[in-house]
Amino acid sequence: MGSRPAPPPRQDTAAFERAHEPSRLIALSDGVFAIIMTLLVLEIHVPDLADGQSLEDALREVRPSFVAFLISFVVVAISWAGHRDLFAHVRRVDRALVWLNLLYLLPLSLVPFGAALLARYEDETVSLQLYGFMLMAIAGARLWVWHYATGRPYLLFAPLDAESRRSGMAIAGAPALGYGLAIVLAEYSPTLALLVFVLLPAGYFVAVWRLRSSAPPEAAEGDFT
Amino acid sequence: MGSRPAPPPRQDTAAFERAHEPSRLIALSDGVFAIIMTLLVLEIHVPDLADGQSLEDALREVRPSFVAFLISFVVVAISWAGHRDLFAHVRRVDRALVWLNLLYLLPLSLVPFGAALLARYEDETVSLQLYGFMLMAIAGARLWVWHYATGRPYLLFAPLDAESRRSGMAIAGAPALGYGLAIVLAEYSPTLALLVFVLLPAGYFVAVWRLRSSAPPEAAEGDFT
Amino acid sequence: MGSRPAPPPRQDTAAFERAHEPSRLIALSDGVFAIIMTLLVLEIHVPDLADGQSLEDALREVRPSFVAFLISFVVVAISWAGHRDLFAHVRRVDRALVWLNLLYLLPLSLVPFGAALLARYEDETVSLQLYGFMLMAIAGARLWVWHYATGRPYLLFAPLDAESRRSGMAIAGAPALGYGLAIVLAEYSPTLALLVFVLLPAGYFVAVWRLRSSAPPEAAEGDFT
Amino acid sequence: MGSRPAPPPRQDTAAFERAHEPSRLIALSDGVFAIIMTLLVLEIHVPDLADGQSLEDALREVRPSFVAFLISFVVVAISWAGHRDLFAHVRRVDRALVWLNLLYLLPLSLVPFGAALLARYEDETVSLQLYGFMLMAIAGARLWVWHYATGRPYLLFAPLDAESRRSGMAIAGAPALGYGLAIVLAEYSPTLALLVFVLLPAGYFVAVWRLRSSAPPEAAEGDFT
Repeated sequence: MGSRPAPPPRQDTAAFERAHEPSRLIALSDGVFAIIMTLLVLEIHVPDLADGQSLEDALREVRPSFVAFLISFVVVAISWAGHRDLFAHVRRVDRALVWLNLLYLLPLSLVPFGAALLARYEDETVSLQLYGFMLMAIAGARLWVWHYATGRPYLLFAPLDAESRRSGMAIAGAPALGYGLAIVLAEYSPTLALLVFVLLPAGYFVAVWRLRSSAPPEAAEGDFT
Repeated sequence: MGSRPAPPPRQDTAAFERAHEPSRLIALSDGVFAIIMTLLVLEIHVPDLADGQSLEDALREVRPSFVAFLISFVVVAISWAGHRDLFAHVRRVDRALVWLNLLYLLPLSLVPFGAALLARYEDETVSLQLYGFMLMAIAGARLWVWHYATGRPYLLFAPLDAESRRSGMAIAGAPALGYGLAIVLAEYSPTLALLVFVLLPAGYFVAVWRLRSSAPPEAAEGDFT
Repeated sequence: MGSRPAPPPRQDTAAFERAHEPSRLIALSDGVFAIIMTLLVLEIHVPDLADGQSLEDALREVRPSFVAFLISFVVVAISWAGHRDLFAHVRRVDRALVWLNLLYLLPLSLVPFGAALLARYEDETVSLQLYGFMLMAIAGARLWVWHYATGRPYLLFAPLDAESRRSGMAIAGAPALGYGLAIVLAEYSPTLALLVFVLLPAGYFVAVWRLRSSAPPEAAEGDFT
Repeated sequence: MGSRPAPPPRQDTAAFERAHEPSRLIALSDGVFAIIMTLLVLEIHVPDLADGQSLEDALREVRPSFVAFLISFVVVAISWAGHRDLFAHVRRVDRALVWLNLLYLLPLSLVPFGAALLARYEDETVSLQLYGFMLMAIAGARLWVWHYATGRPYLLFAPLDAESRRSGMAIAGAPALGYGLAIVLAEYSPTLALLVFVLLPAGYFVAVWRLRSSAPPEAAEGDFT
């Protein structure tokens, strides 16, 4: 888990920098994040309104879809904010980081399917478990990307201290534990599992807030979003 | 509502600037705006054309979808133009501005659902009211983002004068009053409520035109879009 | 049609430049173009394959969707290339140009609907006519944007000579005549109208090729795409 | 196949550079890649879960869609990585490169249709063959773009040596042979053809890894992704 030595220096530094430029990886990722956020709405279907139906009834019909939309939107928003936090430190990407980032985008791009599943079967153990596994995969991939990039100082503008690295890994990986809990809970109480999905983002905001307020002046945690 | 003092200065200014760079927030927002604009068309379904049907009949079948498309396209276009106007002043984003911006994108990403609802039930009180609440949430979130960002001079290239700030808040928030009126009107006359949705953008253009022409030479209102 | 005088100079030039920066308008437009190109595929539906059906039969079933996809993809690609050609000259955008550009994106974002209509009713006069009107609106809006921007030298890096301006207007507007012809032809022969939609892009490529080869060394036409 | 001479120099170099800037072509391409990756999920439909159905059963129902999703996601990811590798060398684009790039995006934007076809008919010769032809078209267009751009040093930051050019062409074009094999195999064993689609990306990773490790210090292959 220690920092790796930089690869041997190259002569044509301009070509090297161009080949390791992070801008396109960031553009692709922002595109994917934006599209997932916006595709989620396609899973909210127009309800069949009976004539004279009240606003409350209509809202009740779309409620499960809306809950799944909200949870998923927040998950994707947090993922984007964490991606932005990480890549504020990244000066260069190498082959492995490009592919790890694509691996991270893979479970993220499944979120609209997970939201549709949750909207249709919000009381079913199996749909809650599949949704939970998807979110675990997202957390795991996010942890891997953070661990890889921050452990290679030659990819960064400036090396991160060990404490900041650990905080970032905790923030990225801890939700996986919560989602594991939800998967277990889903066996006994689908409602409790759904509650975990709703509450975990709130826990994330509190955790980031605490990390920020307790961080020393120049530490990376002070800028976590 | 007064301007807040800047947070204490930091030593590593390059890292600070990178962590507060607005470029990715703008890229994500532009992506979301572009996708919403383009997804709207998916709610216009190909009509069932009887053999020998006239052009007029065919157009009549898609008319409600087309009206909902047009209203929604203009709402999203105005939201994008206002976002661009604001962020022309923004030099840095902090954690709260990032999350306020995501909060603004949330009701915006519901617009394709609102348009589909309006297209299918354009004479129903309840669908007009749901559409109205969605547009009110957009106006409210836009007002909040404007209020937050312009009230913190350390986030801006140059501080805005109080008059410009108020004009921007009026432009962002005033539509909420109009949509509130539409929600009330929808109880009595769905047609009138629909008319409000059609006319409010026109009012927006007139209001911006008046603000621009009456603005002093260097005021921010002179560049409102 | 002559060039307009520049608005009076402003003192805070950095703020002025930021407010008239074209980068976000270009980012939004590129996003919309990319999404339209990619959404078109959603209108090609998986055919029902009978067991033992030949490749030829399967291809025959998706042929009308594929033709509509191809025509529409090329129309959007040409529109993007023309947009890029124009904005290579544009240094600043003003309020009118922002809104004209949004007006241009409006009929473009209807293309997936037009393609779906054409795919389902490729022999129907009325669907061919609606498709034709949509393409006319795109050509008309493109002409308007070109005419507006190139007629205001203060928006450009360098003024265009009158000949280049006229060539650009011809390239942008001429297709509208072809689509008008297709609308008239659709009354008598849907097949001929479809042929016009297929052939017009080929005419575009030839026209640009001739303009490029006959352009004087420094003229803008030499870089038309 | 040799390098072509540069076109005669132009006087107004700033205008020339603006007209040949690759940034918008890259932005459009990144947008298209991101959208394809994300649209793929729309082809995974929520399964009908019977009450008390096990997780295994539910996963089994979406398995064919998920396999088609994964294969297609990896194909698009490899295409993007290769596009990024090429354009790290490209300083300018000319008219032909713009249109070749659009020609490359055309079969790519058909991938969601191909994935849907594969998901629904994964045992049918004809759907596997159509999918194979689509991937062959992608490989062929990628080869053409690479061949065109690297053969024109005036479009590049620095000329590529002949060996690097050939390696890039092999990497781009070799998959076409594999897909041709899959098309033939599909006549006899759909399962074998599907296996080829699954294994070819793995072969790609190995091929790039070997090219990188055997490349001389400054060769372009050392930065293939």
